[in-house]
Amino acid sequence: MQNNVLIVAPHTDDESISMGGTIKKHIDKGDIVNAISMTDGVGARENLTNEIKIGRKNSAILASQILGFNWIASFEFADNKLDTYPLIEIVKCIESVKNKIKPNIVYTSSASDLNIDHRILANAVLTAFRPQPNESCKEIRLFEVASATDYGHHSVTGKFLPNLFVSIEKEWPYKLKALDAYKSEIRNFPHSRSKEGIKNLAEYRGKQIGIPMAEAFEVIRKLEE
Amino acid sequence: MQNNVLIVAPHTDDESISMGGTIKKHIDKGDIVNAISMTDGVGARENLTNEIKIGRKNSAILASQILGFNWIASFEFADNKLDTYPLIEIVKCIESVKNKIKPNIVYTSSASDLNIDHRILANAVLTAFRPQPNESCKEIRLFEVASATDYGHHSVTGKFLPNLFVSIEKEWPYKLKALDAYKSEIRNFPHSRSKEGIKNLAEYRGKQIGIPMAEAFEVIRKLEE
Amino acid sequence: MQNNVLIVAPHTDDESISMGGTIKKHIDKGDIVNAISMTDGVGARENLTNEIKIGRKNSAILASQILGFNWIASFEFADNKLDTYPLIEIVKCIESVKNKIKPNIVYTSSASDLNIDHRILANAVLTAFRPQPNESCKEIRLFEVASATDYGHHSVTGKFLPNLFVSIEKEWPYKLKALDAYKSEIRNFPHSRSKEGIKNLAEYRGKQIGIPMAEAFEVIRKLEE
Amino acid sequence: MQNNVLIVAPHTDDESISMGGTIKKHIDKGDIVNAISMTDGVGARENLTNEIKIGRKNSAILASQILGFNWIASFEFADNKLDTYPLIEIVKCIESVKNKIKPNIVYTSSASDLNIDHRILANAVLTAFRPQPNESCKEIRLFEVASATDYGHHSVTGKFLPNLFVSIEKEWPYKLKALDAYKSEIRNFPHSRSKEGIKNLAEYRGKQIGIPMAEAFEVIRKLEE
Amino acid sequence: MQNNVLIVAPHTDDESISMGGTIKKHIDKGDIVNAISMTDGVGARENLTNEIKIGRKNSAILASQILGFNWIASFEFADNKLDTYPLIEIVKCIESVKNKIKPNIVYTSSASDLNIDHRILANAVLTAFRPQPNESCKEIRLFEVASATDYGHHSVTGKFLPNLFVSIEKEWPYKLKALDAYKSEIRNFPHSRSKEGIKNLAEYRGKQIGIPMAEAFEVIRKLEE
Amino acid sequence: MQNNVLIVAPHTDDESISMGGTIKKHIDKGDIVNAISMTDGVGARENLTNEIKIGRKNSAILASQILGFNWIASFEFADNKLDTYPLIEIVKCIESVKNKIKPNIVYTSSASDLNIDHRILANAVLTAFRPQPNESCKEIRLFEVASATDYGHHSVTGKFLPNLFVSIEKEWPYKLKALDAYKSEIRNFPHSRSKEGIKNLAEYRGKQIGIPMAEAFEVIRKLEE
Repeated sequence: MQNNVLIVAPHTDDESISMGGTIKKHIDKGDIVNAISMTDGVGARENLTNEIKIGRKNSAILASQILGFNWIASFEFADNKLDTYPLIEIVKCIESVKNKIKPNIVYTSSASDLNIDHRILANAVLTAFRPQPNESCKEIRLFEVASATDYGHHSVTGKFLPNLFVSIEKEWPYKLKALDAYKSEIRNFPHSRSKEGIKNLAEYRGKQIGIPMAEAFEVIRKLEE
Repeated sequence: MQNNVLIVAPHTDDESISMGGTIKKHIDKGDIVNAISMTDGVGARENLTNEIKIGRKNSAILASQILGFNWIASFEFADNKLDTYPLIEIVKCIESVKNKIKPNIVYTSSASDLNIDHRILANAVLTAFRPQPNESCKEIRLFEVASATDYGHHSVTGKFLPNLFVSIEKEWPYKLKALDAYKSEIRNFPHSRSKEGIKNLAEYRGKQIGIPMAEAFEVIRKLEE
Repeated sequence: MQNNVLIVAPHTDDESISMGGTIKKHIDKGDIVNAISMTDGVGARENLTNEIKIGRKNSAILASQILGFNWIASFEFADNKLDTYPLIEIVKCIESVKNKIKPNIVYTSSASDLNIDHRILANAVLTAFRPQPNESCKEIRLFEVASATDYGHHSVTGKFLPNLFVSIEKEWPYKLKALDAYKSEIRNFPHSRSKEGIKNLAEYRGKQIGIPMAEAFEVIRKLEE
Repeated sequence: MQNNVLIVAPHTDDESISMGGTIKKHIDKGDIVNAISMTDGVGARENLTNEIKIGRKNSAILASQILGFNWIASFEFADNKLDTYPLIEIVKCIESVKNKIKPNIVYTSSASDLNIDHRILANAVLTAFRPQPNESCKEIRLFEVASATDYGHHSVTGKFLPNLFVSIEKEWPYKLKALDAYKSEIRNFPHSRSKEGIKNLAEYRGKQIGIPMAEAFEVIRKLEE
Repeated sequence: MQNNVLIVAPHTDDESISMGGTIKKHIDKGDIVNAISMTDGVGARENLTNEIKIGRKNSAILASQILGFNWIASFEFADNKLDTYPLIEIVKCIESVKNKIKPNIVYTSSASDLNIDHRILANAVLTAFRPQPNESCKEIRLFEVASATDYGHHSVTGKFLPNLFVSIEKEWPYKLKALDAYKSEIRNFPHSRSKEGIKNLAEYRGKQIGIPMAEAFEVIRKLEE
Repeated sequence: MQNNVLIVAPHTDDESISMGGTIKKHIDKGDIVNAISMTDGVGARENLTNEIKIGRKNSAILASQILGFNWIASFEFADNKLDTYPLIEIVKCIESVKNKIKPNIVYTSSASDLNIDHRILANAVLTAFRPQPNESCKEIRLFEVASATDYGHHSVTGKFLPNLFVSIEKEWPYKLKALDAYKSEIRNFPHSRSKEGIKNLAEYRGKQIGIPMAEAFEVIRKLEE
């Protein structure tokens, strides 16, 4: 069966950092993978220039070409300020996309991330895809973003608790290229959002399940019909 | 002892869906049951007409007549947008009611519901009835609303964990009539907010405690003097 | 792909009560479903006769014929007394079966059940199928048993938190027949292990995901290769 | 309504330390309060003499006279070694008492205590009073024992989370006398099982609910019929 | 080694109520202790006069002199309304202080407090001091504020779970003086923010660790280099 | 101040795998580090020979020489069968050591490990070092063992939640040598108990705190006097 996958990314780059290997795997199996981003991912920065904004857009396009997915919408919520909007506005944007493409698998960020945009988005996605009769979406998966999920704390933000591990050993070279596309977002070792850090995480998640490399997800809800 | 009960409902209809049987039981035992609603419950809808607003108000009045409780205040916060107000404003509205009627038992929605209004209200009620000396309220109970509590997820919203089960077998016919009063809010099976769904929930909660039908509550805090 | 399913049941009857519909679904999709039981399920009773023991065995055989699975081993641990054995003995029995049939999906009872055998078995299965390299098992699913899972309490035993819902509307008649096969284990309404109780649970789990009937599982760990 | 209360104490003294004030309150309201103890409470000590055993029994009798309850059974499980018995044996002892007196409120120790006997007993009581139809017991309350509940740790034993606070300001003098009856079990300040320590706890629980002194309980399950 | 301590207080008075003894202890060991407050702590009150505002400032100065710490910044966010600002604005204020003084130990309020300002601040501090390479801060400690932390509820706000206890028997007289400095904020017994209430809490936390008096903290994250 | 450290290891090798770097660090700072093991660590294996037992002992001695700590006792509980002893027997063994050396920092395994010996030991240590007045131990730290802690699952065993990270970049070469001493216990990549696996874990824990390599601990309780 061909899956119709939707990735709801807080910012462009989250999709590649968290699940670049899994995207490639979906594509290689013949699935459709569409993605949307909620903010431009750079608006909260000081010294923001138009060049930076365009650069980020180009990075996102390049990453999507490397991994094989499509950006189908980009909402213009203010970066790092999703807490300044009514949740329902964010929900309605996601619902508008849902009604158009009717995905059966949806990925988004974890409610336990330190980044406030990520946490709000988990709430918005859970609301947009609430399990009403005839809902197209049969599975919601939360991903893990280096330097957002690991920076949370169980007493403050809750805890990411993965139950699904996707082998990405074969897909790793593509993920690495996608990370290169976002090179301005990648930090130096030992930052967890460095290339070494992201590789370390893949190996850590792999070991947890007995394989060389994996991306980890928390499946919130799945329906087998 | 006659109880002085206050129900703090996010929207009219929540009181009947969640605790219609328990309201009837309170009334039959001679307790006073007052209720307030925070929003009109329809404002977030597209194609909202004045007719819909009036219809909802009439439903609420009819339900209160069937079950025997009184609506004593209706605040005009925007539906599904309690996250756009300072929490303290909502708290102060609840405190104004508290100071007038001095309830000893307070019911409100759970902080684990998917609906953002419900979650904020749990916080507001906990604040308005904080256990200062001479607080009239001796017990806070969270109720469970079909298609709000069951749509939450423990990793995103937390988990409703009931510890009080009220038998409603005898009161069920009245609850059913109250649901009829809100017929525009009731969905078709297998929606969890269908009549069959609400009956199924009552039987599920009943079985958990060894009886035919129950409504379940999470008692947050109780004082026995 | 054909799945090679292993059910590790505390006692015969747990498999049908918890996942009779899902077993039938596996069979209909062409999967292999084998089951083992750890105790005779009746040994803890007073006035135990040989007739009762034979009756229970025959029930188990009949249920397996109705649903299409095979009982491949029956261990003779004392009923309701798994806490009197070293955990490692139970683990080794499960490993002996694992080495023979190399299942890729394993089902067992929840660590949050009230029944002590169920809780110990969850630990034993997690140990027997720990994620070492080359482990055949790619997915561990905990099932929910009426009058064991619902009788637990989050403060004492932990909480069953399902994330997988399997539609069983079509399979329900077969599950009902399997329950009939175990008729001496089935109680009268409103006991949660009555036919009405088990149906109520299926409808409750269905509604949670927007369908008429479901069996719910907690997926502990899954690997997608 | 007259309550028929059963206290299932791990050891004599737990009832007075944890809920001496609440016992007195039940008695003053006309309730019946019976208690059982599972072990002699001293068997695990080195240099145990017959004198110590008799002294403890006399203390228990004296405390019951001060507070007004009855010891109706004393089981001879080995002190601090409840983990060496099959849980079901302990359950059956409790069930034998239950069948005789049919209590409607049951108190026992918390599953989050450091003391292993206390934790096992919480499991046994939950099992003995599982919510089958026609169960007499309508409420299970876990109590808090100085130097057992406070010595636990949320990561190892779980966490006691009280939701019921009983005012004991008026009953405190009686509790103090009952503690005097157990004087060989009471330690010196700043031990949490000193008189000052137990008073401090009563004031701490009182403040949490806005009154001078309280005993705190975790209500596991309650049915209002 | 001399510690460079930063206290991020929601309102002036929180630092003395929660950790007055620990501040004195830091000072006596030769550590530097700086503090900032986010709001004026009185703005949410009705009948607010300029006198009240000045009085509160003077109280804060006096308390700092008694305990030996310095107020180095006071931000003018609206009292009890931190939920009306984008989190990132609060974060940036804290980062501006951090960049100036580069603390190695940071204290702030718990994410489980009932007070909304306290909860938001825990999030803001966790964000401002996220563990990037070369972060000066090696330890984050959450403190406990009488009538904020104890008024929370685990099902609504989460639960404060201390793992660090600081002996304050010797420092208690200084803490008491600091509380006197804030006398308009101190309530009468049995309010938990009364002098007796705060002493009771110190003794309660002491007993938990076997000493006469302590202040308790939840260490979120510590690095030993 | 010189620390007097006690490591309570389920089996020899756990100390080096979990905290070899931290041991070295303690030694280099001038602390005393003593260790005890509860079982021989090999008894549960099939085809056990005397050679294997002697080999394991020699490995343990060699590792202690490399890292600089002392084995001061070795209890002969049956490997992987701590669940067959009364908890109090294990507690008494630990207390006998405690009374002799009076450690101020105690390390042991996590109650969330999959290995049953590890979980029981966490309980025993918490009991042996309960916070009575004059207890020498001021801090209890749980360590993390590759292929025991990572093999647990939050729904079955609970979750290891570290709050202390010790930098071990400088000490890594010594840890590696200690692992070589236990070479018969070390598996091949991608097993989590391979050298690469243990290095990956050190880097993962490092990144979480912004440094190259760390060992992580859960501090259960600490007293600062």
